Amino acid sequence: MSDETTKYLLGEDQIPTHWINLMPDLPGEPLPPLSPATKEPAAPEELLAIFPPGLLEQEMTPEPEVEIPEEVRNAYRLWRPTPLYRARRLEKELDTPAHIYYKYEGVSPSGSHKPNTAVPQAYENAKAGIKKLSTETGAGQWGSSLAFACGLFGLECEVFMVGGSYDQKPYRRSMMETWGAEVHRSPSQVTQAGRDNAQHDSGSLGIAISEAVEVAAQDPDTNYALGSVLGHVLLHQTVIGQETILQMEMAGEEPDVIVGCVGGGSNFGGLTIPWLRRNLRDGAKTRYLATEPAACPTLTKGVYAYDHGDIAGMTPIMPMYTLGHKFVPPSMHAGGLRYHGDSPLVSALVHEGLVEARAYNQNECFRNGTTFARTEGIIPAPEPTHAISGAIEEALAAKEAGEERVILFGLCGHGHFDLAAYDAFLAGTLEDPEFSQQDMDAAVSNLPEGVPSL
Amino acid sequence: MSDETTKYLLGEDQIPTHWINLMPDLPGEPLPPLSPATKEPAAPEELLAIFPPGLLEQEMTPEPEVEIPEEVRNAYRLWRPTPLYRARRLEKELDTPAHIYYKYEGVSPSGSHKPNTAVPQAYENAKAGIKKLSTETGAGQWGSSLAFACGLFGLECEVFMVGGSYDQKPYRRSMMETWGAEVHRSPSQVTQAGRDNAQHDSGSLGIAISEAVEVAAQDPDTNYALGSVLGHVLLHQTVIGQETILQMEMAGEEPDVIVGCVGGGSNFGGLTIPWLRRNLRDGAKTRYLATEPAACPTLTKGVYAYDHGDIAGMTPIMPMYTLGHKFVPPSMHAGGLRYHGDSPLVSALVHEGLVEARAYNQNECFRNGTTFARTEGIIPAPEPTHAISGAIEEALAAKEAGEERVILFGLCGHGHFDLAAYDAFLAGTLEDPEFSQQDMDAAVSNLPEGVPSL
Repeated sequence: MSDETTKYLLGEDQIPTHWINLMPDLPGEPLPPLSPATKEPAAPEELLAIFPPGLLEQEMTPEPEVEIPEEVRNAYRLWRPTPLYRARRLEKELDTPAHIYYKYEGVSPSGSHKPNTAVPQAYENAKAGIKKLSTETGAGQWGSSLAFACGLFGLECEVFMVGGSYDQKPYRRSMMETWGAEVHRSPSQVTQAGRDNAQHDSGSLGIAISEAVEVAAQDPDTNYALGSVLGHVLLHQTVIGQETILQMEMAGEEPDVIVGCVGGGSNFGGLTIPWLRRNLRDGAKTRYLATEPAACPTLTKGVYAYDHGDIAGMTPIMPMYTLGHKFVPPSMHAGGLRYHGDSPLVSALVHEGLVEARAYNQNECFRNGTTFARTEGIIPAPEPTHAISGAIEEALAAKEAGEERVILFGLCGHGHFDLAAYDAFLAGTLEDPEFSQQDMDAAVSNLPEGVPSL
Repeated sequence: MSDETTKYLLGEDQIPTHWINLMPDLPGEPLPPLSPATKEPAAPEELLAIFPPGLLEQEMTPEPEVEIPEEVRNAYRLWRPTPLYRARRLEKELDTPAHIYYKYEGVSPSGSHKPNTAVPQAYENAKAGIKKLSTETGAGQWGSSLAFACGLFGLECEVFMVGGSYDQKPYRRSMMETWGAEVHRSPSQVTQAGRDNAQHDSGSLGIAISEAVEVAAQDPDTNYALGSVLGHVLLHQTVIGQETILQMEMAGEEPDVIVGCVGGGSNFGGLTIPWLRRNLRDGAKTRYLATEPAACPTLTKGVYAYDHGDIAGMTPIMPMYTLGHKFVPPSMHAGGLRYHGDSPLVSALVHEGLVEARAYNQNECFRNGTTFARTEGIIPAPEPTHAISGAIEEALAAKEAGEERVILFGLCGHGHFDLAAYDAFLAGTLEDPEFSQQDMDAAVSNLPEGVPSL
């Protein structure tokens, strides 16, 4: 018989009114991004070539909170607040004394947390008179979210989709086109960066970013939009964590550990930043666990260094954990986690020991994702199966210890466009792509020169 | 710039506590289903071979309301209450004075309204000690919903999926398998009904029903489950309409017309029955519009007669609009509307003039579905694009008349598994399958003999 469903719903008036900026609460000065041209701290003017003033202001703000524009909050109401569930059926399946909670962002129109930042990015660009946004997308979650958001604010949208994902998830492309976007398979023939990297046929986020930045740099009416990594993106995603604070209060529990998957870091940052700030202020000993694919182990095997965000070296040089901007991760289903680098903020938190990191294999993740689907009813995207794997590992550790620990994780999207991967898993033909230490070592030997070492 | 989002949310305590049975409010005695063997009114014992007592009781109840079991309400809380939106961006696009509202059922784990009945069906069967449910599915919405619900209550699930949809929507199959169900392409080789109809390679709901009923009839531990048509299915779906009554009260408006798409009638019935009952009691002049595909125009071109629900003539003979149980509708993307017959209740409402019916072409529906996606942000399944088409036609009529009419329609599911169809539409290669009056005339000449004429 079915166990009790426990869902925590907020009213629309509880959609956050502000985004949270963690920087003022962190000790020391943040390491600045560097100009790829001069290797000196990047001047705001350089970034204005591809970002509108509103976003740049959010990127650089010293304020601990940034007010969410009314137009953005209004669009958020299409799907926010999102539900928080207690995973009672999963707990029972694991026979664990742990209490497992998950925040579900898959109720958005594009099915993930990405519209939380796509909407304010489209809004600020439209406000600045920009006509078109160009971007890259891995699994397609970000590209489809931006296509959706551009539709709301009357902008055109051009998307470079990583080749491997383009082939695996044709319906993500259809979704973007249904919303009116133009989609290219990356590496494409329409940019220099694409033509230069044609040999990497399955593509990578690093290549697709170079293509999208190139398109934006050539047209004054076109701006670039990035779905993760940068400060303003993490800022926008803090609506997730803020809602979970209210919802865990409704549940009357305090998390012992908060788990999220990390690609560029926006999902993880969005979930954890509001909690981290609270902990930094009240001294509570919450643990934070960042989970990633064993095939692209940026946080667990990367080096902490200044590196480019893209393969062509066009983006600012940022301090982060990196496998080297020339590293092309092996093809895998969690396309959203297939990035050589990571958000400077999440990297710093890991470097400072405030966040732990752990890597999981693809088959392990799909096994846990299937267990989750069969118990909780929601089929997760491949990306959050890494968070599920972390949460399950924590729940089994609690069982081992005989402790009633409280676990909160981020279920950042559904897997409706990833069922070919579940097919392969169920048929026993899913591969565990291997991480190449050698390739990474070669890529890391190409880190930019003349930059501060960390 | 984005227009105001208007969403009406209910609290969990507003999930209905009862289902609504319209029968006691309708004049006259209902026409009984007939036994396929004797052509006499079917005895409850005959139905007990495939349905559990709890569902049979709900099927036959004379009570105007049936209490929802606590275990079912509890599972409903996984996704209910569902949101009601005002389609302000669509209104603006159409430049209409009409106010358009839509109830969105796509937030359920399987993405449509179908779990509203899958859950109570799985519950009643589990309670009766049944081990497995067999069923048919067209577009896969019902099969995936039943697979999900069986998972919640520990039942096995075997699904016969209509061949055309099986080929068009492979990920619906993957979804069912991820939830643990066994899926056959219908017509299959595992049943007599399947082998007998192997020549209809793209299958039909009528064939798939025969297959699933055959499997259930042969094993005492297996029951059959039907996703539409029958009284208890429409009963379960009345949670939709009840919630919309509360939500339209929040909006402070009363619908002038309520629009839903009709395949077997459960979505339409679920949305309209609570409103119809209110109107029958208070005499209000709300209009009801049932929309269907021009390629399978049961309500607009069918005959009102006693007919079988399946091609093999194994189900009870029911009074309904039918194209003949031997009619195999042409292949189309709205697989959930590809059924030769219709719910006896919805048929009677159309026959009595309480409900209007209108048919739309496939391309017209996808054009309207794309307009909806680009304005409202949700990509609709092909089935509700028929409701969208009806709503848009009504909104344009209101514009023509210069009247501020209030339109409510049911958006019964998302189109995440239907993007190949959107692809074809956007590429201009989507077909408009033709209805064959000749085939229907031939099928209708095979209506069962020795039954009352209507």
